[in-house]
Amino acid sequence: MPANESEGNVGPVDATKVPRFAGLPTFARLPRREDVDRCDVAVLGMPFDSGTSYRPGARFGPESIRAGSRLLRPYNPGLDVSPFETLQVADAGDLAINPFSIDDAITDIENGLEHVLQTSTRVITLGGDHTIALPILRVLNRRHGPIAVVHFDAHLDTWDTYFGARITHGTPFRRASEEGLLARGNCIHLGIRGPLYDRLDLSRDSDLGFMVRPASAMGEVHHDQILAEIRHRVGSWPVYVSVDIDVLDPGFAPGTGTPEPGGLTSRELLGLLRGLTGLPIIGADVVEVAPAYDHAEITALAAAHVTYELISLMALQADVPL
Amino acid sequence: MPANESEGNVGPVDATKVPRFAGLPTFARLPRREDVDRCDVAVLGMPFDSGTSYRPGARFGPESIRAGSRLLRPYNPGLDVSPFETLQVADAGDLAINPFSIDDAITDIENGLEHVLQTSTRVITLGGDHTIALPILRVLNRRHGPIAVVHFDAHLDTWDTYFGARITHGTPFRRASEEGLLARGNCIHLGIRGPLYDRLDLSRDSDLGFMVRPASAMGEVHHDQILAEIRHRVGSWPVYVSVDIDVLDPGFAPGTGTPEPGGLTSRELLGLLRGLTGLPIIGADVVEVAPAYDHAEITALAAAHVTYELISLMALQADVPL
Amino acid sequence: MPANESEGNVGPVDATKVPRFAGLPTFARLPRREDVDRCDVAVLGMPFDSGTSYRPGARFGPESIRAGSRLLRPYNPGLDVSPFETLQVADAGDLAINPFSIDDAITDIENGLEHVLQTSTRVITLGGDHTIALPILRVLNRRHGPIAVVHFDAHLDTWDTYFGARITHGTPFRRASEEGLLARGNCIHLGIRGPLYDRLDLSRDSDLGFMVRPASAMGEVHHDQILAEIRHRVGSWPVYVSVDIDVLDPGFAPGTGTPEPGGLTSRELLGLLRGLTGLPIIGADVVEVAPAYDHAEITALAAAHVTYELISLMALQADVPL
Amino acid sequence: MPANESEGNVGPVDATKVPRFAGLPTFARLPRREDVDRCDVAVLGMPFDSGTSYRPGARFGPESIRAGSRLLRPYNPGLDVSPFETLQVADAGDLAINPFSIDDAITDIENGLEHVLQTSTRVITLGGDHTIALPILRVLNRRHGPIAVVHFDAHLDTWDTYFGARITHGTPFRRASEEGLLARGNCIHLGIRGPLYDRLDLSRDSDLGFMVRPASAMGEVHHDQILAEIRHRVGSWPVYVSVDIDVLDPGFAPGTGTPEPGGLTSRELLGLLRGLTGLPIIGADVVEVAPAYDHAEITALAAAHVTYELISLMALQADVPL
Amino acid sequence: MPANESEGNVGPVDATKVPRFAGLPTFARLPRREDVDRCDVAVLGMPFDSGTSYRPGARFGPESIRAGSRLLRPYNPGLDVSPFETLQVADAGDLAINPFSIDDAITDIENGLEHVLQTSTRVITLGGDHTIALPILRVLNRRHGPIAVVHFDAHLDTWDTYFGARITHGTPFRRASEEGLLARGNCIHLGIRGPLYDRLDLSRDSDLGFMVRPASAMGEVHHDQILAEIRHRVGSWPVYVSVDIDVLDPGFAPGTGTPEPGGLTSRELLGLLRGLTGLPIIGADVVEVAPAYDHAEITALAAAHVTYELISLMALQADVPL
Amino acid sequence: MPANESEGNVGPVDATKVPRFAGLPTFARLPRREDVDRCDVAVLGMPFDSGTSYRPGARFGPESIRAGSRLLRPYNPGLDVSPFETLQVADAGDLAINPFSIDDAITDIENGLEHVLQTSTRVITLGGDHTIALPILRVLNRRHGPIAVVHFDAHLDTWDTYFGARITHGTPFRRASEEGLLARGNCIHLGIRGPLYDRLDLSRDSDLGFMVRPASAMGEVHHDQILAEIRHRVGSWPVYVSVDIDVLDPGFAPGTGTPEPGGLTSRELLGLLRGLTGLPIIGADVVEVAPAYDHAEITALAAAHVTYELISLMALQADVPL
Repeated sequence: MPANESEGNVGPVDATKVPRFAGLPTFARLPRREDVDRCDVAVLGMPFDSGTSYRPGARFGPESIRAGSRLLRPYNPGLDVSPFETLQVADAGDLAINPFSIDDAITDIENGLEHVLQTSTRVITLGGDHTIALPILRVLNRRHGPIAVVHFDAHLDTWDTYFGARITHGTPFRRASEEGLLARGNCIHLGIRGPLYDRLDLSRDSDLGFMVRPASAMGEVHHDQILAEIRHRVGSWPVYVSVDIDVLDPGFAPGTGTPEPGGLTSRELLGLLRGLTGLPIIGADVVEVAPAYDHAEITALAAAHVTYELISLMALQADVPL
Repeated sequence: MPANESEGNVGPVDATKVPRFAGLPTFARLPRREDVDRCDVAVLGMPFDSGTSYRPGARFGPESIRAGSRLLRPYNPGLDVSPFETLQVADAGDLAINPFSIDDAITDIENGLEHVLQTSTRVITLGGDHTIALPILRVLNRRHGPIAVVHFDAHLDTWDTYFGARITHGTPFRRASEEGLLARGNCIHLGIRGPLYDRLDLSRDSDLGFMVRPASAMGEVHHDQILAEIRHRVGSWPVYVSVDIDVLDPGFAPGTGTPEPGGLTSRELLGLLRGLTGLPIIGADVVEVAPAYDHAEITALAAAHVTYELISLMALQADVPL
Repeated sequence: MPANESEGNVGPVDATKVPRFAGLPTFARLPRREDVDRCDVAVLGMPFDSGTSYRPGARFGPESIRAGSRLLRPYNPGLDVSPFETLQVADAGDLAINPFSIDDAITDIENGLEHVLQTSTRVITLGGDHTIALPILRVLNRRHGPIAVVHFDAHLDTWDTYFGARITHGTPFRRASEEGLLARGNCIHLGIRGPLYDRLDLSRDSDLGFMVRPASAMGEVHHDQILAEIRHRVGSWPVYVSVDIDVLDPGFAPGTGTPEPGGLTSRELLGLLRGLTGLPIIGADVVEVAPAYDHAEITALAAAHVTYELISLMALQADVPL
Repeated sequence: MPANESEGNVGPVDATKVPRFAGLPTFARLPRREDVDRCDVAVLGMPFDSGTSYRPGARFGPESIRAGSRLLRPYNPGLDVSPFETLQVADAGDLAINPFSIDDAITDIENGLEHVLQTSTRVITLGGDHTIALPILRVLNRRHGPIAVVHFDAHLDTWDTYFGARITHGTPFRRASEEGLLARGNCIHLGIRGPLYDRLDLSRDSDLGFMVRPASAMGEVHHDQILAEIRHRVGSWPVYVSVDIDVLDPGFAPGTGTPEPGGLTSRELLGLLRGLTGLPIIGADVVEVAPAYDHAEITALAAAHVTYELISLMALQADVPL
Repeated sequence: MPANESEGNVGPVDATKVPRFAGLPTFARLPRREDVDRCDVAVLGMPFDSGTSYRPGARFGPESIRAGSRLLRPYNPGLDVSPFETLQVADAGDLAINPFSIDDAITDIENGLEHVLQTSTRVITLGGDHTIALPILRVLNRRHGPIAVVHFDAHLDTWDTYFGARITHGTPFRRASEEGLLARGNCIHLGIRGPLYDRLDLSRDSDLGFMVRPASAMGEVHHDQILAEIRHRVGSWPVYVSVDIDVLDPGFAPGTGTPEPGGLTSRELLGLLRGLTGLPIIGADVVEVAPAYDHAEITALAAAHVTYELISLMALQADVPL
Repeated sequence: MPANESEGNVGPVDATKVPRFAGLPTFARLPRREDVDRCDVAVLGMPFDSGTSYRPGARFGPESIRAGSRLLRPYNPGLDVSPFETLQVADAGDLAINPFSIDDAITDIENGLEHVLQTSTRVITLGGDHTIALPILRVLNRRHGPIAVVHFDAHLDTWDTYFGARITHGTPFRRASEEGLLARGNCIHLGIRGPLYDRLDLSRDSDLGFMVRPASAMGEVHHDQILAEIRHRVGSWPVYVSVDIDVLDPGFAPGTGTPEPGGLTSRELLGLLRGLTGLPIIGADVVEVAPAYDHAEITALAAAHVTYELISLMALQADVPL
């Protein structure tokens, strides 16, 4: 399978010579990490769903998002950038993560990510359930210090425990805040909706350092205003963008574990992401794609495009944040 | 299975101790009607679809909505209310309704509902097809007199006959109007769209006491204006809210019998419902969920959340309307 | 199966006497072309998908759209017209098109369409993949001269070659422009989105005579403005409306071959079409419905309603354009 | 659409000239009844499912079986016969049957079938639920006197009443026996399985004139023996073959209303049918195909092939039974 | 909801008065455990799938099997027994099992089962993944001593560790054998097929006390012989029957986690179970139903019928084994 | 991703260390061709379906079969062989095949296969539609001379032309016979069923050098006899095994383009393949998997196991045939 080369970077397989339905499905048909000498952005799968509280299956998320990424083309007109020319992007495969012990899994993820970051400048993670955000933030905090999280999700994910477990897909940002990984007061949730356990969920979330822009705001407030709020909120801190695909309405993303009606459209989400240009993004994840509940790959396609916009944002940053 | 108790009401099973995928699926994992002493709001299934003109299957609607309700949590941040604390809500199970004779079915529903209302203050009905609205309105009219119907639907449901049948899922509001059950001039349809049989359908509908806010208005007119129109329209009459799930676009609610493109988003519908605070709601239904056509429970989830908002509205009313 | 007759036109089968789920599924349950004496608008299937680059299956599109059209009723309240009364509309069946040779298929389509147009004033085509637009434009250009194309699609469809093939579903409008079939400078794409191969794709597209209104504009610009732009763009040229169903977001139209997130809602698309009243529409197509990827017919329903709006627009034109 | 003509009969559309995915889907792409002068066997749809006790949807059965019949070719090697050459077979479309009243529906079916039989020698019915067997047997009894039923089904269908209804899909053969339509002692059920209400179900069934060969026998007894039993049982009475598609295991026929595990394979069923050569078959039905529960048309395909074998059996009878 | 009472036992809801699609779905519409005074056989759900190595989702198994059990009727003609008359069978609901820690889950299951067995003579478990067999066998061994396991499965489930975990769905019978819970030399696997890790898998399995009858034998050896082998193998030990639904071919049971082609038909499995009459069955499970991969409930239906046959076998035992 | 190494061959990724749902899905998680020095058997994808006459989509077949192969383990107990130890098996990826011209595609396949065979001793092909068998046989004939084809299929695939096209998925074996590629009189079809166009189809097929064992024989004749017939038929000629997955009944393989009821079970097919030990197999294909019509991967799983048995047969041959 020949690959496009331009400006020194190895790009996707040429779709006019190899059909999009042929070949091993790396993300966007990019080269594997081991097939390029250097890597600016590694796309890394974390097939893990043992922290899921309702519909499991996000362990098949990375495979599904890769399949959904085969239609991606190299030029992003929305941001006027060809990300795979600007950056060497590669598919670093999947981490091998213990499915039977959350504790061991956290260790596997921390070690695996450290390993990948030794030879790749930045990583975008394909989940997996949202549990993985905690070990990722631990690793990134070691390198970048406190991090401002821009979090797209139907849920706060700052709950405390569930069945006695402190680390699940409902708790990563509480644990991260408690561990001092976050720039408190500089984090924001977008797309929150649905019932909560208690009114206190919101005040506790605020104490942990987050502000909330609910999904209902997306239809009422101009997106430019929301984008301004995000920029003001994160200030100049290193930014981590975490996209739980359930931020989309179930009509756009049925293939997920804890769907909530009343969500964003895919056009809204992609538009908001495109509005984040210039933020110093040090890492990102796209999580909670559970393909057993997907139909015609629509969830996977949305997740693949979200990933593509995130890579494009990285390509537009003058310098890699340190 | 232990249940939360707060302020004297028995609430849902505690999801941090019993996983949401465990236990018999009552609505929102609330207690069964027979397991509580009193009941402010009974959720009552009416598994009946013999009045359906196209895709049948709403007989499996109550079961499906209950399954979709397992993710509901007790606090509603959109309305700042914990409805299961404020009210004793319980699942009254399903009525046994004759599937082979519409006439017998109507009798079964009237008798069954009367029976439930002897020990429950209000009832929210899970359909079933829209035929059930007629016997429900008959029962409620006996208690409350003329009723203002706030009707979310793709269709008017004021047709006359079909194959000689006067009582089907396309006729409940014509029959109700003819029988004097409605506050004529105080009823409203929202979300109407799609072709009609004749221009006269609209004028006849108006004669029966309804005004129409079509689905196309939802994207053009500010929702505050629509909400003001609803309030003005219903005046101070007792209100019945009827939600045919096909008011949603088929992209959000594929699991229904007569889908029409061009509908509402789930965010729009939930937002409009939240705007009805303070109306004297004496009853409500959520109908036409046909799970054989659903995917990944997205229709069921939307219907469950609609039901939850309706219960929340009831919880916000100072007094139960009489 | 009896048919309604009004003002001399044979309309759909009467749904109050023959259930919508009974009878051979002609489009909107209209008469077959051979069962009426004359025909103002023929609905013609072109089951062909050999020009497809990714997910095939649009060969089953015409059958699927017909199935989705059974719920259409005769009066269009959005445009206040009863199109089947105003016009004699009939279902001309499907062309027999060679599935194994694109060149032979193009000939089959040109010949078949010429044949149908000998006895039908206008044709609306149910695809099939977008390849079919080229032979259709050839035939229409012979009758009407240069044509202004109003093109709803996620993709430009003005690429050059793919695997050496010059005629595929990604190239019809480039070939049409090169062949002089189009009114250059009077064509417009609406709903474009997703990554491209190259920044040059856009400038080349412009050189071929098109302007672009991307999908992102649909959420930002008032539709009245977009409609004014369309009218200004097409001027007084004969208009061909081409609707690739993938202009809708995959949440509304999963059943298609090259889905792109971030698309239009079905309400937006139907609303825009209704805004085209008065344009001199000489033909139209609805393409790329691939039912193997559809769910609960939602894509087919959307395509059927699009077709219905196109027929309604034709019914509102004082005179048939010549 | 040209049609093959051979030996005076109009056969299916030629698949080497018109692809199987093109054209209106009559059964086996045969001519419509109104397009041929005479008809030896009419294939007649009865889209009716208001007698269904569990999963409805067989109203879409005729359409589904026709779609599944498009792959049928004209020569049957299993029986060495070209049925469409030997007989003029045509698609008589669907009866219009009242969906809201079982009593009216029975009348519609009796009248409709009488009408079709005035110009067609024999009829094979595509259901619809099994309720339709009763009015069919009434009509046939008027012409042929007592009838021996060869009944393939998971269920006896000789129950008495259900919710007070005497005519449903669970009762046709009890009613037929009580009305004297059957050759008592000459009827047989094949493929019966699953739990019953009571041990008496079997003795009552025997009293009504049936013997039972359960599904478990199909794997234990040589099919030649079973075929001999059938022949012995029916004697020389006119034979009606009724095939409820749920005689197949749900693995082969998921698209049905009351599935029972432990059923026949499609190979077994088709083989048994081919063994019925020479029986004086005066009519037949294929019922209970509910496509909302089907997958990839596998149930529809099985039903289409069953229909094809039944037509082939008719083609092999020297004389039409009178 | 009224219930049938006969011979003192409370049976299923009467389906001629309450449609099968109405009411909370207890197994076979039997009473809940808390609604009857005593219980001979409790049907107990164990919604747990954290021991799954491939496709998760068996946590939704109990709910799914209950839904599939609604068509079960009270008389079993295959075994000539009315099990719900002979025995008081009740639905004991689901255990609350920790989804985040296998160790805690094992404890939850042991404690929960002990609790249920205090007031129910025997238990049939609806899984859940196969991990649950280990704690069940521990509890039963405490009461009955060494147990002969009759194990229907595609897989041996005697592997050692996976990712360092000793207790997963691939290891219960190795652990049980090592812990001395089994009657070594008296256990048997039926339906085994598919590739293994190593030839040693078989000899180690034999060392652990099992013999193997592979799936291929089912088509080659008369089932009477296989049944004789089972009886000979288990001798007079107390018998535990464990049915992994993947013993069925994926065509009959797609809804499972580790499917293997080449399996049993549902008719074969039900027939073999019916052949186990008289064995002293002290407990049983039906596991690995993962409804996210099911279609039209066919897997759930098969599992429900398996459960029904197991209950029927218990009803035919003269005395409850002690 | 570490790989097992044994006896010098690189085997599959170790599933006890890397979960089966992680990593790029090569066939059976084997190494890619470029990652091993030598290759005894290359598994090669041919994603091509432009020769399909009905349901397209086999272009996604190779990807689908690879996904279905992730559960394969290294030891085959049915044949007592560890094929990946005995042989170096590797995944050679997919050929890039022109989807828009059958003629160019044939050239692509011939050239591509020649290229792969320069460094791999044998090739097993994952289709793609059955068209690909012709260019494969051309290449193999150049190396091995006349070839005996053992062909498992529902269809003869010896038709002549379709729409004027001589090379489609219905004609490969006619063309191959005409071109002298086959050992005439030594080829055999197994599993044939369903209607044909004409009685002459069979005699022409015989003239081309084939004998037929229909699907109906599989249930009537002992498989040992069928296997003896195969051996006798092929004599000592080099054998090519071609498995069209539609040889399975649609219940076992819904995901295919031209399904025919009455087919083989997966157990029968796998058993027959295991009976071919010792035949000098020079190549093989597994074709016509169309995943858009599959459910829960059951077709893909069956195809993956078929491929595994074919590799195992190759591993059991003492010498590679020349």
